[in-house]
Amino acid sequence: MRPIASAEIIAVGSELLTPSRLDTNSLAITERLRALGIALRAKAVVGDRASDLAAVFRGALERADLIILTGGLGPTDDDLTRDVVARELGLELIEDTAITDAIRARFARRGLEMPEINRRQAMVPRGASVLANANGTAPGLMLDAGDRLVVLLPGPPRELTPMLDGPVLATLSRRTAGTTLHTRIVRIFGRSESHTEEAIRPLYAEWAQASPPIDVTILAARGAIDLLLSINAASPESAAETLQVAAERTAAILGDDVYSTDGEPIENVVGQLLQKRGWRFAAAESCTGGLVLKRLTDFAGSSEYVEGGVVSYGNFMKTAILGVEPQVLEADGAVSERVAMQMASGVRRLTGAEVGIGITGIAGPGGGSERKPVGTVMIAAELPEARAVRTRRYSGGRDLIRDLASHAALDMVRRLLTDRPVP
Amino acid sequence: MRPIASAEIIAVGSELLTPSRLDTNSLAITERLRALGIALRAKAVVGDRASDLAAVFRGALERADLIILTGGLGPTDDDLTRDVVARELGLELIEDTAITDAIRARFARRGLEMPEINRRQAMVPRGASVLANANGTAPGLMLDAGDRLVVLLPGPPRELTPMLDGPVLATLSRRTAGTTLHTRIVRIFGRSESHTEEAIRPLYAEWAQASPPIDVTILAARGAIDLLLSINAASPESAAETLQVAAERTAAILGDDVYSTDGEPIENVVGQLLQKRGWRFAAAESCTGGLVLKRLTDFAGSSEYVEGGVVSYGNFMKTAILGVEPQVLEADGAVSERVAMQMASGVRRLTGAEVGIGITGIAGPGGGSERKPVGTVMIAAELPEARAVRTRRYSGGRDLIRDLASHAALDMVRRLLTDRPVP
Repeated sequence: MRPIASAEIIAVGSELLTPSRLDTNSLAITERLRALGIALRAKAVVGDRASDLAAVFRGALERADLIILTGGLGPTDDDLTRDVVARELGLELIEDTAITDAIRARFARRGLEMPEINRRQAMVPRGASVLANANGTAPGLMLDAGDRLVVLLPGPPRELTPMLDGPVLATLSRRTAGTTLHTRIVRIFGRSESHTEEAIRPLYAEWAQASPPIDVTILAARGAIDLLLSINAASPESAAETLQVAAERTAAILGDDVYSTDGEPIENVVGQLLQKRGWRFAAAESCTGGLVLKRLTDFAGSSEYVEGGVVSYGNFMKTAILGVEPQVLEADGAVSERVAMQMASGVRRLTGAEVGIGITGIAGPGGGSERKPVGTVMIAAELPEARAVRTRRYSGGRDLIRDLASHAALDMVRRLLTDRPVP
Repeated sequence: MRPIASAEIIAVGSELLTPSRLDTNSLAITERLRALGIALRAKAVVGDRASDLAAVFRGALERADLIILTGGLGPTDDDLTRDVVARELGLELIEDTAITDAIRARFARRGLEMPEINRRQAMVPRGASVLANANGTAPGLMLDAGDRLVVLLPGPPRELTPMLDGPVLATLSRRTAGTTLHTRIVRIFGRSESHTEEAIRPLYAEWAQASPPIDVTILAARGAIDLLLSINAASPESAAETLQVAAERTAAILGDDVYSTDGEPIENVVGQLLQKRGWRFAAAESCTGGLVLKRLTDFAGSSEYVEGGVVSYGNFMKTAILGVEPQVLEADGAVSERVAMQMASGVRRLTGAEVGIGITGIAGPGGGSERKPVGTVMIAAELPEARAVRTRRYSGGRDLIRDLASHAALDMVRRLLTDRPVP
């Protein structure tokens, strides 16, 4: 039998097609598959309609070595997965009386008689292995279809997970090729997706030829870029070494814009740099309204290096608490580099923190002018022996502008803490 | 042309097949489709492999009147959606120089030259309508394929949403059958999902019998509960009236726990109450690290009523800036009702705002004790003639605890501003 290298997941249930529900079982399954080096080719959600499920299942059978279906194993007429799979594979359904007995016993334990409809859950396609369900009535099923493996799991996570981590993984690990997937994430801030890709494209071709090949995926989200480098390898040590070299070469090309070569978020990178110096951080935020402090304190342990800060939405707080000079406010306006810088100095003075930042800007949608359109943000940072202030022009909605500005402020601090120039 | 009654959504991108990412665009799309009475038959996520995408797209074309593809419209070799759709539909790709010019201008505004690879984004299948992208380089595309409609949208939500709500909905509403879905959202804070359901269950049966029937969905997320009341009707006026009555009856049963009968978020409810009194708001936050202020300032116009505040992660800021008495800190500890109350008073005094809140607690995972376990949060609010302080015990991770505490603080302010008792 050929090794299992690719998979598709099909979640069954009309409720998963509503605007408020997502199929999250597939995430847990994907995680297990990746660890075994099985590539997920596609996943689908299908409603409770036999013809749709049959068509999607047939499509998956054509492409993948392993098809995992979740949901639709209940006792009601809506629950079609067993029937459709058996029909598509030309297998007869036979009642497995051991299952009927188990379901009946389960009801009896609660002092109830088994409703007749639950008998449907004991129907098993000829030749399938039954996966016992300790947490519900629907057993899982596993069956060979030519050189494909088809697995049916119940939808509720607490019923699905024990089957997945028990019999399903045991079977899969016997039938994969022995390699597992290893990933490393290089994180970049300060250049666009296309400029990143252009710079590292020469590495792509080389990596595609390597043995094993290194696969690269570029993810761009909210101003930050992640490069996912991954390889399928039998030995974790050699994989780690290969990825280490690849991450270093990438970092050498992208230079100062790389803030992490191991997937650390910017908040932690800055946190570790602060801890290394024994310094504390404070922020004076206007348009970001507390977002920088919120992001840093998302991480447990941030009290080690976050002193706190001031959200100065109104001008009163800028002058009375942060000590921004009224004549500077008057002359340059609240959204100006001098005000940002005085906010950074002010919050350092106020809190005694070594590192202070100041952010002032126009997050929109209102408040813009020709000289200072929506998206104009001044970011300042002050350290014991370094300081910088920059004006940025962001486009996008209020949320994105605030996200970009907070990320840029953290990145400015990172550069200053590591003696890198601030672009 | 027959009316559009069914749809499938295909999200394209290998990153959406990783264990940490979900396709959430499909939720926004589903919501719009439901409003137009279009049934979603299935949805899929496909990686960046042309043959897989082609097969899934062919399957969708066989089943649905409308196929919406999201993602894979970027400039890189990974971005295959345009090419695959054109090939499957037998359409030639032609460069639309107006798009090339728009992309070039977009780069120029940031002082950059357009990388040559971006030219791919200007390739348009013959006969397609181009959907302009104000927030990115990739235009959307809309094309007829026999009696099917195929829509290609960029993956980033801020690029996708304007196209969806603009030209796509305009086209769809011309091509559907007539009745539309109307929804009203009643929002609740301060009771559990099951207690909410128990209280309003008598209404369910009655509404199911109504003509047209009123459909109820309960969504519980992060401590807040939303009741979605919806009906399918031809006339918007009668729908609005029916839903108005239903929302009022629900609110009458659930009483003070209802903070909105028209889907307003708590941040806006509090904002409107503050504006009505002409009062300003300030926060002193410890364990929430700026989250309350961040949430309030997520909304444009919040500068009308948010003065700002202080994030006092360290004790120094609590005493030196907020005026918390050192002997109270010493006697009760930083996580105590007296400290929360003094933080609320202190930030009012400091900023001159009429309304002040104080939050101190243990968001975890570390820092808990037997008397004050992780999840213990003290929340205080002070207004000119009212004040309250409460101790809450939340369970869940750091994020959830911070979310619940910030929501509870805003809800406490709402109750005090409307002379309701604080439970």
